[in-house]
Amino acid sequence: MCKIYKPHEKIDFKVKNITINNLRIPNNERTARQAAENYGTENYGKLPLNQSQERKGVVRTPISSINANLADEIVTIRARVQTSRAKSAKLAFFVFRQQDRTIQGVLTVDQTNISKNFIKFATNVPTESIVLVEGVVCKTKEEIKSTTDDAQFSRIALETRLNNRVIDLRTIANHGIFRIQSGISQLFREFLLSKSFIEIHTPKIIGAASEGGANVFSVKYFKGEAFLAQSPQLYKQMCICADFERVFEIAPVFRAEDSNTHRHMTEFVGLDLEMAFEEHYHEVLDVLDELFRFIFTGLKSRYASEIETVKRQYPSADFEFHSEKTLKLEYKDAIKLLRENGKEIGDFDDLSTENEKFLGKLIKEKYNTDFYILDKFPLAVRPFYTMPDPNDKQYSNSYDFFMRGQEILSGAQRIHDPEFLEERAKVHDVEIRTIQPYIDSFKRGAPPHAGGGIGLERVVMFYLNLDDIRRSSLFPRDPKRLEP
Amino acid sequence: MCKIYKPHEKIDFKVKNITINNLRIPNNERTARQAAENYGTENYGKLPLNQSQERKGVVRTPISSINANLADEIVTIRARVQTSRAKSAKLAFFVFRQQDRTIQGVLTVDQTNISKNFIKFATNVPTESIVLVEGVVCKTKEEIKSTTDDAQFSRIALETRLNNRVIDLRTIANHGIFRIQSGISQLFREFLLSKSFIEIHTPKIIGAASEGGANVFSVKYFKGEAFLAQSPQLYKQMCICADFERVFEIAPVFRAEDSNTHRHMTEFVGLDLEMAFEEHYHEVLDVLDELFRFIFTGLKSRYASEIETVKRQYPSADFEFHSEKTLKLEYKDAIKLLRENGKEIGDFDDLSTENEKFLGKLIKEKYNTDFYILDKFPLAVRPFYTMPDPNDKQYSNSYDFFMRGQEILSGAQRIHDPEFLEERAKVHDVEIRTIQPYIDSFKRGAPPHAGGGIGLERVVMFYLNLDDIRRSSLFPRDPKRLEP
Repeated sequence: MCKIYKPHEKIDFKVKNITINNLRIPNNERTARQAAENYGTENYGKLPLNQSQERKGVVRTPISSINANLADEIVTIRARVQTSRAKSAKLAFFVFRQQDRTIQGVLTVDQTNISKNFIKFATNVPTESIVLVEGVVCKTKEEIKSTTDDAQFSRIALETRLNNRVIDLRTIANHGIFRIQSGISQLFREFLLSKSFIEIHTPKIIGAASEGGANVFSVKYFKGEAFLAQSPQLYKQMCICADFERVFEIAPVFRAEDSNTHRHMTEFVGLDLEMAFEEHYHEVLDVLDELFRFIFTGLKSRYASEIETVKRQYPSADFEFHSEKTLKLEYKDAIKLLRENGKEIGDFDDLSTENEKFLGKLIKEKYNTDFYILDKFPLAVRPFYTMPDPNDKQYSNSYDFFMRGQEILSGAQRIHDPEFLEERAKVHDVEIRTIQPYIDSFKRGAPPHAGGGIGLERVVMFYLNLDDIRRSSLFPRDPKRLEP
Repeated sequence: MCKIYKPHEKIDFKVKNITINNLRIPNNERTARQAAENYGTENYGKLPLNQSQERKGVVRTPISSINANLADEIVTIRARVQTSRAKSAKLAFFVFRQQDRTIQGVLTVDQTNISKNFIKFATNVPTESIVLVEGVVCKTKEEIKSTTDDAQFSRIALETRLNNRVIDLRTIANHGIFRIQSGISQLFREFLLSKSFIEIHTPKIIGAASEGGANVFSVKYFKGEAFLAQSPQLYKQMCICADFERVFEIAPVFRAEDSNTHRHMTEFVGLDLEMAFEEHYHEVLDVLDELFRFIFTGLKSRYASEIETVKRQYPSADFEFHSEKTLKLEYKDAIKLLRENGKEIGDFDDLSTENEKFLGKLIKEKYNTDFYILDKFPLAVRPFYTMPDPNDKQYSNSYDFFMRGQEILSGAQRIHDPEFLEERAKVHDVEIRTIQPYIDSFKRGAPPHAGGGIGLERVVMFYLNLDDIRRSSLFPRDPKRLEP
């Protein structure tokens, strides 16, 4: 009988047979099975390739639902062999794994069903094989030590992980990261749908390099040329011109930027939104503020266990935010704070990554938050479609949101008057020809509107304080990586 | 005073002033305002460009919430001028519009507030301008005839519509279509999340033309070359190999197919899913069946009004489906049915579009459903990664779903054994080099799995019985169209 132990619970799970659902059996095993002492061979072996031949409806029990209430019951599990160890020719230990759950087991020779050959066969099953295990659950006297932990993998280099991404993604930390990633999108949508937004899909293949020629990928399009959208910016605004009032999109964005840093990728997921407002763009800023607090609160309540799992491999301090109202500073106050702390920076200079991080540190110390908003950026450092500040033309009605001192959202009130838009495009040396359909969209009226674009992987990265954005992308793309 | 009538309700809305929130005023109007009889000028005029200068918090009432209960109350609305008509120098009629809602109004000269100049100004406001209108709601004796209908636009050619897409998208039929499109994605996710799926994002820029070199767009990638993913097929399977068990993705897919038909685009939105199963791929087919019935039922209950609106412009019979269990035929039975009805077709021939549609017609007559499943396609017409039928190697464990006789989902059990996968790739002349990372993913074990890919725009198109897929895409892309 093979006993399978569940961590932190006083239960056993007596296994009756193990069959390999998948993967090769080493040839020497086949020979071994010809040997003597060959009773109980029906209890182990390799199954044929599953081609859906039968549908018996045998219930397979998730490891997560095996507990003391199932004591004495026979259950079947499909799981990977995480580890196996022959203690002697008559005794072997296993750890079976399903996603982030594991269960530990012991296999012992008996006179009728479990032969030494069974033990030999089972301990020779390659780790990571998927097996079917049938057995009986029973109680134990002592609590089993947790086997669900892959902290031992924490020193494996990122490059090695990414080169073997499918295996790497099986770790419980990665399952946690990508469940949290999935959760952020759900919370984003859940909140916006409750605020009467609708989901849109805008084209990624576009006819002209509409946000400036730099950093755009070109595509061979039949006999001509096309480009990959660097954001849904122009199209989501065109949906506002088409009276959709409140729109969001979750889609890939593409940046042909030859940046090999810890926080840049050539392809990432944009969480974009755009919204008509009545009087003031701060109406939109308020929605964005509430959106993020909804996401952070939702992550804490719905993904507490995943957050803990990730922290075991990537230790970090809890993400702190003000749950009632997010701290909002004006850009000029941020400059002042930086200067008071010894940084030399001009009133209208853009923030370097170094200054961004330093500012984050100062704000954390002063206000105890990892999340804040900078409002009223200098006009000159923002895109051509940004609405100037009515009170000081050197500033603008634009904002960035920061997590742990790094930008995760950029947004603004947009210019909704076609003549002024054209004027500003010319100041920025944007070729009008390339944005003509966009400018034309405003000619039959557009409401005042504002919005923002969020980098999904950045939110995951900074929420969990990961050291590299590639850890928060399933299959990251950078100037040097296109595989797997 | 200007009276504004709401369709189908016995109410008035007496307007006190109108200001243009947006758009140019013709110059002759400015001159007119210099003329005599210039009282009440504070009640009309052009507002400055909204640069978010004040935040008074004046409530703006949605047209949808104006009803008899608001009688005698002053409300402010932001709306477009749909039509305006001067009956005389002292009397004018308007239709104001918000998305799919309109309200009708009359403006009459009085001695103190509303001058002939006001009437002249108001009737000269270009249609589609966005205006702020303040007024009083009061009751009427007769019901106002509906003004919310754009059936008169139904003869405008698709090409003209697409060339002026932002204006075209403002029609109530289009608002209906894209709310339904948004709804389909929400229902898709809602159902799958309830079944323990997680949302994934896989790369669209890939290193090799992994699904065969044909119909793939190439991208200039720094100093090298890359390709646009034709589907998330290989990556969603790699997530199954990484033990995510059940995954879905909503993302653009790209097809460099020079097809200029009513149902092909070069970029569309794929609703993809992939799922490990226990015994038989019909477990997955059952989930897909339930998913679609959930979507169709949800559309009927949540989007009844949008469906009706779309039908007014695009008349069609209701979409019929079996709400308890979807009709499932084997491919060979479909061939039999076609033959019985005079079509010459070989056992293992693929279905032409013509035969697909004819089959749809036969099935509708015989089973009274616009939705059905064909199972067990010939192996030769399916991609290399398709699992053969264990009982007859000329068939496969694969299926298509049809709406109104046209394919909207294609799926199958996939081969999860790396050696067999490589063997099948060779039969299909797929270069192993280009799919090596994919094949390698199966080398450390993979559970049996199946899935499918759904074309979002096709579901919208066939559900509403639109005549061209471009009508169900905000900004469609085809070999000849990259703008707007």
